Amino acid sequence: MSQTSTDIKSRAIFLLGFGGVGRALTRQIIAARQLHATRNHLRLSVNGIADSSGVVLAADGMSDEQLNRLLEAKTHSGRLGVEQAPLRSVQPSSHLAPGTIVVDTTATDVTAPFLVAAMRAACGVVLANKLPMAGDLAWYDVFAAGSARWETTVGAALPVISTVRTLLDSGDEIQHIEGSLSGTLGFIASQLEAGVLFGDAVRDARQRGYTEPDPRQDLGGLDAARKALILARMVGYRLNMSDVQVESLYPAEMDHLSVDAFLHEVDSLNASMALRANALTQGGRRLRYAATVENGRCGVGLVGADPVSKLGGIRTSDSIVVFSTKFYSENPLAISGRGAGQEVTAAGVLGDIVDLSREMA
Amino acid sequence: MSQTSTDIKSRAIFLLGFGGVGRALTRQIIAARQLHATRNHLRLSVNGIADSSGVVLAADGMSDEQLNRLLEAKTHSGRLGVEQAPLRSVQPSSHLAPGTIVVDTTATDVTAPFLVAAMRAACGVVLANKLPMAGDLAWYDVFAAGSARWETTVGAALPVISTVRTLLDSGDEIQHIEGSLSGTLGFIASQLEAGVLFGDAVRDARQRGYTEPDPRQDLGGLDAARKALILARMVGYRLNMSDVQVESLYPAEMDHLSVDAFLHEVDSLNASMALRANALTQGGRRLRYAATVENGRCGVGLVGADPVSKLGGIRTSDSIVVFSTKFYSENPLAISGRGAGQEVTAAGVLGDIVDLSREMA
Repeated sequence: MSQTSTDIKSRAIFLLGFGGVGRALTRQIIAARQLHATRNHLRLSVNGIADSSGVVLAADGMSDEQLNRLLEAKTHSGRLGVEQAPLRSVQPSSHLAPGTIVVDTTATDVTAPFLVAAMRAACGVVLANKLPMAGDLAWYDVFAAGSARWETTVGAALPVISTVRTLLDSGDEIQHIEGSLSGTLGFIASQLEAGVLFGDAVRDARQRGYTEPDPRQDLGGLDAARKALILARMVGYRLNMSDVQVESLYPAEMDHLSVDAFLHEVDSLNASMALRANALTQGGRRLRYAATVENGRCGVGLVGADPVSKLGGIRTSDSIVVFSTKFYSENPLAISGRGAGQEVTAAGVLGDIVDLSREMA
Repeated sequence: MSQTSTDIKSRAIFLLGFGGVGRALTRQIIAARQLHATRNHLRLSVNGIADSSGVVLAADGMSDEQLNRLLEAKTHSGRLGVEQAPLRSVQPSSHLAPGTIVVDTTATDVTAPFLVAAMRAACGVVLANKLPMAGDLAWYDVFAAGSARWETTVGAALPVISTVRTLLDSGDEIQHIEGSLSGTLGFIASQLEAGVLFGDAVRDARQRGYTEPDPRQDLGGLDAARKALILARMVGYRLNMSDVQVESLYPAEMDHLSVDAFLHEVDSLNASMALRANALTQGGRRLRYAATVENGRCGVGLVGADPVSKLGGIRTSDSIVVFSTKFYSENPLAISGRGAGQEVTAAGVLGDIVDLSREMA
């Protein structure tokens, strides 16, 4: 079917964050122009990009040439490299047209007040950033009650959030959620299960680029805990991060160490971690770092999963979420696959933008 | 948060089909009134119900008391039991208000012209009925381009269709889909794999109520083929049912037999089915009746699945769909769980109605 240009609706996008996901998203927006025109009768117009170095604004949208120049500019900091207005000079109510979709690909909660102001100014919000969703409950309530999407906050582009939403819309009752939502901790759990020493597993994961430069950021479990909290809040539990039971894979006493010292002293945990792994994998159970949402509570930590269960059966490089509900009791609903990565996360954000555009049309 | 009634949007529903799914949906609509008011600011108003016995119309919506009376009326035929206007007397353009959602829970393609006319009259359409989606490509194109949802045509309420949609919206490229989408044929495949004779498996499945009264309706594979075709069309393949490669588990020569004669003579297939099952399960492979969508083609039939693959790893009482795409290549995206049943299908239809209401608001 041919579409004349008059059929195509332009949708303004204001992008927060121009790191790996933000740049991948920008490239994908450009690459999908033809697809969006024919399939969705939509043109995504990037009217603003902000990162910690400043904001670029273009009321009529940036051309693909301008976007490509920003993508190609290699700045010393890896940032946008503009010295224009800081984000705090932008007021959603006066600078963003109603109907603009603000996309947050940062990893900071300082964006939350901006996002809330955007929602109040009749803008939509798409979050890849977990922190505003796992932060103040008042923020969460604003996003949950309005035109917002946050699919990629749990399991990257895996359709986890949309599934929770549909289950709730359809009057189903979610009784239990369990999931393996951290590729890094999944890898380390599989290594422990195979008898690898904890310290070796941590250093190996770091060398492969699976962890942050400071692996304690992964080993502490907070990222997985935020995902569990977002799911728990969607189910209706009024919880905060302080309510989430988090099993850290290292003791708080090691927080003061330098990264190098930690990577050396982590071997002091080898014996206790091996004992714990052995205890949890008795009888062929599989070691997983799992999130659990049930009975008004949520938590993350090591578990021994039944090898024939959905959680126990997946490869550890997969993320998985398993829902037991009124309608999915004996045969729980499971969603699994690659649950991390900048390109796939950007694709999930793009899916959210198109879906939200449809609703806001 | 309290909501005043002025916040609540009423959405007219016109229901085609009042069998198991249609009745379950009606009960769920009533049960979800409070949920929809508080969560979705929505009231679903059933303005019409039609089945092959006639049509009940109520321009201002039926009260829950009226709906309950229709649900309780036990008619000889199991049908609506009204002798009012036939469906053909209802013209969507003159009898349905724009914005009405027409819900098809029948299993006939005679509803298709009505649905197409409803789409043209600015109504929405939700299909649990596969036949219009797997019928004339011109019908498919009308639904695919407009305000329609058909989540429950493939895998009941499992979020299969919405996932295809999101993958396409996000510019991902779907390279391969495989799935086990028939509980009945999954059961028979698991029995064959366990060494049960084909005839015994068929009679057992029928006695358990897993098959239609005439089990050939399941064994022929057409229902699974329609699901594969719907997925293939969504991926962009311009195919019709005659293009789908369908492996029937009985030869066409047995079509003329009575049901009783078939249930007796089916044992003549025992030896050939055992041979085929043995050949496909060499080396520990798992027997599945699978749908495959790939390279512009689609088909359904028996396959031997790698036991560590997602298709091979599930319990046969589960439905599963596995997507291999540009972004999900090494770790394919899989969705599994209960993929059949009237209550869960009705819940999926209700989810579609709420989602479509959001878009049409």
